[in-house]
Amino acid sequence: MNNSNDSFPLPQRLPTRSNYLKVKENLAPISTGALLYLRGGVTHTRDDTDVEVDFRQESNFFYLSGIEKAGYHILVALAIDKIFLIPPTVSPDEQLWKGIPDSFTELLKKYDADFVLTEKQLPQFIADIDPRVIFTLDTTDVSAIPKEYHGKLDKSRLRMAINEARLIKLPWEISILRYSARISSHAHMSLMSLVGSKNKSLYNEAELEANFRWTCARNGLARQCYIPIIASGPRAAVLHYTDNDRLIPDKSPHTLILVDAGGEYKCYGSDITRTFPLHGKFTEEAKTIYNIVLKAQNAVLKLIGPGVLWRDMHNLVVRVLCYELVRIGILVGHAYELMKLGVYRAFYFHGTGHSVGLDCHDVGGSGIGILTHQIRKGRKGVTLDLNRALEKDMVVTVEPGLYFNDVSIDIWTKNPAYARYFNMEKINQYRVIGGVRIEDTILITDDGHENFTIAPKEVHDIEALMKH
Amino acid sequence: MNNSNDSFPLPQRLPTRSNYLKVKENLAPISTGALLYLRGGVTHTRDDTDVEVDFRQESNFFYLSGIEKAGYHILVALAIDKIFLIPPTVSPDEQLWKGIPDSFTELLKKYDADFVLTEKQLPQFIADIDPRVIFTLDTTDVSAIPKEYHGKLDKSRLRMAINEARLIKLPWEISILRYSARISSHAHMSLMSLVGSKNKSLYNEAELEANFRWTCARNGLARQCYIPIIASGPRAAVLHYTDNDRLIPDKSPHTLILVDAGGEYKCYGSDITRTFPLHGKFTEEAKTIYNIVLKAQNAVLKLIGPGVLWRDMHNLVVRVLCYELVRIGILVGHAYELMKLGVYRAFYFHGTGHSVGLDCHDVGGSGIGILTHQIRKGRKGVTLDLNRALEKDMVVTVEPGLYFNDVSIDIWTKNPAYARYFNMEKINQYRVIGGVRIEDTILITDDGHENFTIAPKEVHDIEALMKH
Repeated sequence: MNNSNDSFPLPQRLPTRSNYLKVKENLAPISTGALLYLRGGVTHTRDDTDVEVDFRQESNFFYLSGIEKAGYHILVALAIDKIFLIPPTVSPDEQLWKGIPDSFTELLKKYDADFVLTEKQLPQFIADIDPRVIFTLDTTDVSAIPKEYHGKLDKSRLRMAINEARLIKLPWEISILRYSARISSHAHMSLMSLVGSKNKSLYNEAELEANFRWTCARNGLARQCYIPIIASGPRAAVLHYTDNDRLIPDKSPHTLILVDAGGEYKCYGSDITRTFPLHGKFTEEAKTIYNIVLKAQNAVLKLIGPGVLWRDMHNLVVRVLCYELVRIGILVGHAYELMKLGVYRAFYFHGTGHSVGLDCHDVGGSGIGILTHQIRKGRKGVTLDLNRALEKDMVVTVEPGLYFNDVSIDIWTKNPAYARYFNMEKINQYRVIGGVRIEDTILITDDGHENFTIAPKEVHDIEALMKH
Repeated sequence: MNNSNDSFPLPQRLPTRSNYLKVKENLAPISTGALLYLRGGVTHTRDDTDVEVDFRQESNFFYLSGIEKAGYHILVALAIDKIFLIPPTVSPDEQLWKGIPDSFTELLKKYDADFVLTEKQLPQFIADIDPRVIFTLDTTDVSAIPKEYHGKLDKSRLRMAINEARLIKLPWEISILRYSARISSHAHMSLMSLVGSKNKSLYNEAELEANFRWTCARNGLARQCYIPIIASGPRAAVLHYTDNDRLIPDKSPHTLILVDAGGEYKCYGSDITRTFPLHGKFTEEAKTIYNIVLKAQNAVLKLIGPGVLWRDMHNLVVRVLCYELVRIGILVGHAYELMKLGVYRAFYFHGTGHSVGLDCHDVGGSGIGILTHQIRKGRKGVTLDLNRALEKDMVVTVEPGLYFNDVSIDIWTKNPAYARYFNMEKINQYRVIGGVRIEDTILITDDGHENFTIAPKEVHDIEALMKH
């Protein structure tokens, strides 16, 4: 599918009209004379300087337009399914600095639209249609819509229609998401191999982040889906550690490096975590914790598929973790009772997964809560809920983990109500491990799932990849 | 100068107190009871998502604090030269996600300050001092200052005091700027070598950008000073081309790649352009244009030093370009007359340089105009003016160029007043070259300059570097 403008795979012209048609279906019933209007992102400069900040298109606008560049609008006449692109106005002087803009013909070759309007034509065009309603988002800049039509703006119905549409992926979206996850998997493998290839382990976390970005970018994933987490040693237990600025501790044979990173291609992302030993070989303690997490993930992957409830998958992870933490002596008591008490939260305090798409924590339809903010604000143990059954063509992560986080361990073990369920000696034996998370991005299929993530995760495979 | 937290050179604890002392001198006379307050940048999420955007500290805050992380404030008691750091408040729940914040002792080890205050202590602390004036910037968020002291805020004097200070670099700043430019030079060399090493030239510009970022980042320059310009073929004539998304045209032997890119280390940037042939060898036409630009740059580098006026350097570049364009037949007439008429602007339509520091187009003191916005808005031929004599320890770029930009050529050659000064046949012969710019970041020294830029720029050196 190569073409002359693009040495990376997949077509340049994304069939985003198919996205629009799904959104329209979710908007029904629609009165005649209805328009849909969205305006994409614009470029910004940093603080009071003239330094332009890297641009990334707003996801909903991208979903309906496929346009990665700044300054565009789209207008859709819903009754006749005609999509109008409105490119930014570029003065001749600006053309000296930014180049000659695409012609209308070029725009219609690049993007899945029917017509092109200029910004100057837009107000009269809307007046000519005299719409009864203009669907838009509450976050959209509508200053280009003539004032007299602001009363016709419906800023509420469109969002849920888009969210519902975005939750279930179309085949071409799946191709791109698969490519993003594949290339990101290669970046994880390249990192393991790089760390394994050095004789001495004088690394800065920043160097590893740079290597990850490089493998992604040279394969077309110029942007990361989120700020990479490159956490070595005790920092692996800090869920959203993104400083990535420390020298990786090389004294302990237990040192693990947790890498939670995924690139995005044409705005479609991936979300992958691998945890591997700095010195190329897991110690017994590291292997024990690692294999518990892997067991929990495999339990989910074995059962996941259409109709499955996400909360059941989360509870399955919790059950495996509790049984195993009792088996190795960290938790004391009956696994089932410990589950009910929630004491496992000392070591596992995030959800088991979330939808992935144009955003890392992707939007969903009704019943899909995006709760990260609330979690960060302190609702411990709340998952990124997918409160309805999984369906074919959803793309989700499965990401169990175990963490020896000093803050969390203190909260639980110093609480007199729970102290007796913890064996501090065992905790201290494993504390050196820091943290382990194993996260794959998968597609829900008719008969279960397809794993987009191809980076190895068995202990012997990781050790083999790191051996030089 | 390595230390255990940092595998890259230069100290972690930057002596930013020396910056403060310069700013204070520029603020004099200062009444007793004067405070200086600045608040650094905070993290942002993209659109309506929870995806955190890469953070980069506001330059003036960094200048006075050396803090690259988000959420901090500083307060300085000017009479006693005591600097107070105020770190962001982190709740225990946030610590699960973001890690345990630095202790006060760690903060004072990392940053050049005297005391640490909590955000909670700040209002009472200010009330206790009961300041007569609080210097701050008009762009600073002052919501943490108690309302009753908003009347004491002086939002005007501090900016010029900082701008003046930032224009002349201190020795430790020079060390960092030198390192940034050196590593960025290596990234340019690595790119030339990479392009030379391939048998077939199936490149996407994005791949080259990725390689540039990787060489920078693995050496500690995690961020670019500005969005890299990777412009191949005709796009090299577009000054601010940053799409970097095309397949590099490999059919013409003339194809040049113009790379304008520089990383930043600890927020101190570099700005470097190199232009090299895709196929490893300059054609005669390419060499002719390239050597004219190089001659213009060398003319400036030979004369530049303390006391020199920037406009004289710009005029020197224009003179060389005019004489040479007449010599090769593109311009017709007497070079001196053509200079006065300004017809060279058909091929050279930007300034010859600017100050570099914490921003790519760095701030300066009085008489230093940062005119890029105006240029983009259409003031053709206006330079990024340094309207006063150069001084020792300024860091500036020298960046002449020649461009065969269709928009620009049309504007000039189709104007009946100017058409006779252009030889269209010659223009068309050289049009295939696209554009050439050669840009170095240099330090003004007592006896001239030190060139921080070590990437080769002679034709035979570039060709040697690209030979495999």
